[in-house]
Amino acid sequence: MLTGLSYLGFQRSAPSGLTFTARAAATGAALPTTYHAASPADVAAAAHLAQQAFPAFRDLPGTSRGAFLRAIAANIEALGQTLTDLAMAETGLPEPRIKGETARTCGQLRLFAAMVEDGSWVDARIDRADPSRSPLPKPDTRSQLRPLGPVVVFGAANFPLAYSTAGGDTASALAAGCPVIVKAHPGHPGTAGLVAAAIVDAARSLGLPEGTFSMLYDLGHATGAALVSHPSIQAVGFTGSRSGGLALMQLAAQRPQPIPVFAEMSSVNPVFLLPGALAERGAALGAALAASVALGVGQFCTNPGLVILDRRADSTPFRDALAAALQATAPAPMLNAGIRQNYLLTRDALAAHPDVRELLTVPTPHPACGGAALFETSAAALLANPSLSGEVFGPSTLLVTADGPEEMLAIARALEGQLTATVHAAASDLPTQRDLLAILETRVGRVLGAGFPTGLEVNHSIVHSGPFPATSDGRSTSVGGAALFRFTRQVCWQDVPDALLPPALQEANPLALRRTVDGTPT
Amino acid sequence: MLTGLSYLGFQRSAPSGLTFTARAAATGAALPTTYHAASPADVAAAAHLAQQAFPAFRDLPGTSRGAFLRAIAANIEALGQTLTDLAMAETGLPEPRIKGETARTCGQLRLFAAMVEDGSWVDARIDRADPSRSPLPKPDTRSQLRPLGPVVVFGAANFPLAYSTAGGDTASALAAGCPVIVKAHPGHPGTAGLVAAAIVDAARSLGLPEGTFSMLYDLGHATGAALVSHPSIQAVGFTGSRSGGLALMQLAAQRPQPIPVFAEMSSVNPVFLLPGALAERGAALGAALAASVALGVGQFCTNPGLVILDRRADSTPFRDALAAALQATAPAPMLNAGIRQNYLLTRDALAAHPDVRELLTVPTPHPACGGAALFETSAAALLANPSLSGEVFGPSTLLVTADGPEEMLAIARALEGQLTATVHAAASDLPTQRDLLAILETRVGRVLGAGFPTGLEVNHSIVHSGPFPATSDGRSTSVGGAALFRFTRQVCWQDVPDALLPPALQEANPLALRRTVDGTPT
Repeated sequence: MLTGLSYLGFQRSAPSGLTFTARAAATGAALPTTYHAASPADVAAAAHLAQQAFPAFRDLPGTSRGAFLRAIAANIEALGQTLTDLAMAETGLPEPRIKGETARTCGQLRLFAAMVEDGSWVDARIDRADPSRSPLPKPDTRSQLRPLGPVVVFGAANFPLAYSTAGGDTASALAAGCPVIVKAHPGHPGTAGLVAAAIVDAARSLGLPEGTFSMLYDLGHATGAALVSHPSIQAVGFTGSRSGGLALMQLAAQRPQPIPVFAEMSSVNPVFLLPGALAERGAALGAALAASVALGVGQFCTNPGLVILDRRADSTPFRDALAAALQATAPAPMLNAGIRQNYLLTRDALAAHPDVRELLTVPTPHPACGGAALFETSAAALLANPSLSGEVFGPSTLLVTADGPEEMLAIARALEGQLTATVHAAASDLPTQRDLLAILETRVGRVLGAGFPTGLEVNHSIVHSGPFPATSDGRSTSVGGAALFRFTRQVCWQDVPDALLPPALQEANPLALRRTVDGTPT
Repeated sequence: MLTGLSYLGFQRSAPSGLTFTARAAATGAALPTTYHAASPADVAAAAHLAQQAFPAFRDLPGTSRGAFLRAIAANIEALGQTLTDLAMAETGLPEPRIKGETARTCGQLRLFAAMVEDGSWVDARIDRADPSRSPLPKPDTRSQLRPLGPVVVFGAANFPLAYSTAGGDTASALAAGCPVIVKAHPGHPGTAGLVAAAIVDAARSLGLPEGTFSMLYDLGHATGAALVSHPSIQAVGFTGSRSGGLALMQLAAQRPQPIPVFAEMSSVNPVFLLPGALAERGAALGAALAASVALGVGQFCTNPGLVILDRRADSTPFRDALAAALQATAPAPMLNAGIRQNYLLTRDALAAHPDVRELLTVPTPHPACGGAALFETSAAALLANPSLSGEVFGPSTLLVTADGPEEMLAIARALEGQLTATVHAAASDLPTQRDLLAILETRVGRVLGAGFPTGLEVNHSIVHSGPFPATSDGRSTSVGGAALFRFTRQVCWQDVPDALLPPALQEANPLALRRTVDGTPT
């Protein structure tokens, strides 16, 4: 099943001179399959197929696209333990995490399937003509969301399934009617290959246009850059580093026709612990925070990397529980050697900063693992050194002690854009809690009033996004029902004969959609 | 009333060393008021006020923002003939046009007022908690659209009211809850001043935060650039030239925190005349096209600058009617000397092109006027010279003769992004009509099946947008009910106590909004 070759629609690419292998995260050993980097001709072929497929795929009934998404989910589930084992080997992530991520991936596909089968997501708006209006007759105008065109999705290192080949961006783009070309992440090319096969099989068995989906391998950046620069591509989805996201934003902006890039880049997900909450449930908060920091060896974009607390509150039970739980966390393999090296470098830089105190570092005897770390600094130092709030991608967090609520609010105001922020409060904290929430909603995509930010509910109201630099475009979510909108734009038809309108806009409402007619929801 | 000074919230700026005057479009004569260019300190003051005003303005009930928009409309109407006369003098546009544009401006303000008073535009989504769910309890997540923050709006040369100080972008930004700073267009600073006074008076009389609105003058680019680069500004609205729009896009992308720019830049609004339509109603199409080309001396972004017809169709009645009507169009003053000079230069460049034949040029004895012009080329020449489809901003259009339907489709495929495209067809044209519509919806924001693109209906379904370079971001409209969305993003609250949620998301639904609860519209 794993040939190591890219998918150009239903075909496999020719072998190329450039090959690479994946490495087992836990041992660094090369895994068996040899992967062939896509050639410039492969990029052109995939883009051409996608462009050719677009009009027919766009115009499929929502039920057909829904069936496609459901077939992908079923095919992924049918891969069973084969997929789990390979993803575990490639990423070092434990079995429950891979199984959970697979379930989430299939759940996302079915969420979007249900939306496109229902069909009302297209936001059909109809304003009927009035030929007798004076001074000018009123035309008939009708608009709905339409897909942008072929989309490139980059697989993410830290989510081999939910943010990769059949992950959120692929699912929402296909649901919207956009052909997708995935640039597989070289850290888990086998997982990508199995999932790509599941998608291609679904497309072929349902008779969809061949260019609906392609998947290209590359170890370096050339294929990704060529895809983003290709004139047929109309949008890009990416989850990864800030440098990677910024590079794609720049490439996309420099095209003769600039295109949107939806890059999720970095976030330290600040957690504010107000004095009442610390007094009421400090130990429980410490244990739960530790679990969130250490989850998945800290390799989550929602990992809480900054914890702000009031110096004058009694934080001893919290600190003791946090330290004990982090200390007790068994070091586990990180996703790959590069991520581990970057973790150690950024962690050590933090430890070496004169204003930072190292509270705890779990030693990691095994060379593939990343142990937990806990640091402390003052609010004044953080405000004076914004670099202290940079992302440390791994199981590390920085406690920040503030001199009272005003300094906590100052930290909130100084925050860069984040995916999430969390405020734990008790009844006695109400004034500060209220002020913090008012600031934080301008800095993040999701504000939490309980719990911790790792673990993301996939539903209709979730927002996984945030102002720059958390993402490139905070007006769009990558997770949840609203993710469908990022790959669309509203198109209006004026005085076009009914039979030539898309079915969603035809007068008889053949799809039985909820529509807005003359300004009134129906 | 006209002091020539900028508005910094409720205050007037100090006089600056840099002054300019407006010129009467019809004569070039200087108009009486002296305007003072804003200083860097004025920019900083306006941005600071806007930033300070944001949280309170954002959190106002929709009814308060609705009352504000209605008060602005009433104040503008109360300006009556004073406003009409000054706008006519500054722009050279005729009285019915200025009165129509004033009515449209006030209509837009009231459309948005109605939307924010109703309140359901915020797209409230609620997914309720399920603490008993296994393996993990389900959190409570609630999201809604929230305003981005302070917005800069650039007044447009060609729409002194509907796309300027209280125009579409200002109205939708204020409706969404964003403070607005207008950079007045130097072509109609008096009109801007009167309308700004109408807005400031409304804000003051309703007790709104002072920084809700400011308006700055400048003859050059420094104030606009400083505003777009200011860290408090979160989005930009612009209607103007492609070079101006591209410069703003670049400035915004280079900020430490890039922000969205909604620039409407250029469009030639192609019109396809299929053979059956030409045979059936050629003369009527010619006369109607001429009226659209000449409307407002061609100074509309929706002006039809490219007309594609089949060489083998009988186009004589169409051509005769078009030429006669254009010939009969009285030359009228253009907006300003720069626009007129640019019109003559681009028109003459087209005339001088070896593949272009000049069919008609109406002489303009008066130095302020622009006369109509009509050119012809072949589809092959157009496809070989994409520059021939560049915008000529004025009453000029280019007929393109194609060798049959395939060449017409090739032209459609080769089009850059446009605001509009129009297809006139008869029953016998169905196959080509269908194929054209399928291509054109990917190139434009609005497809017309009858009529001509000038004259824009302001309603819930209209789209005034289009793929780059028609606009910088084809996913957003500048006109119509959906324009409210461009200045917002979805924010999610997870497990936040009910009393601390925005009212739109509170369990009791105190605003009685339509909401999506657990995936179901209610």
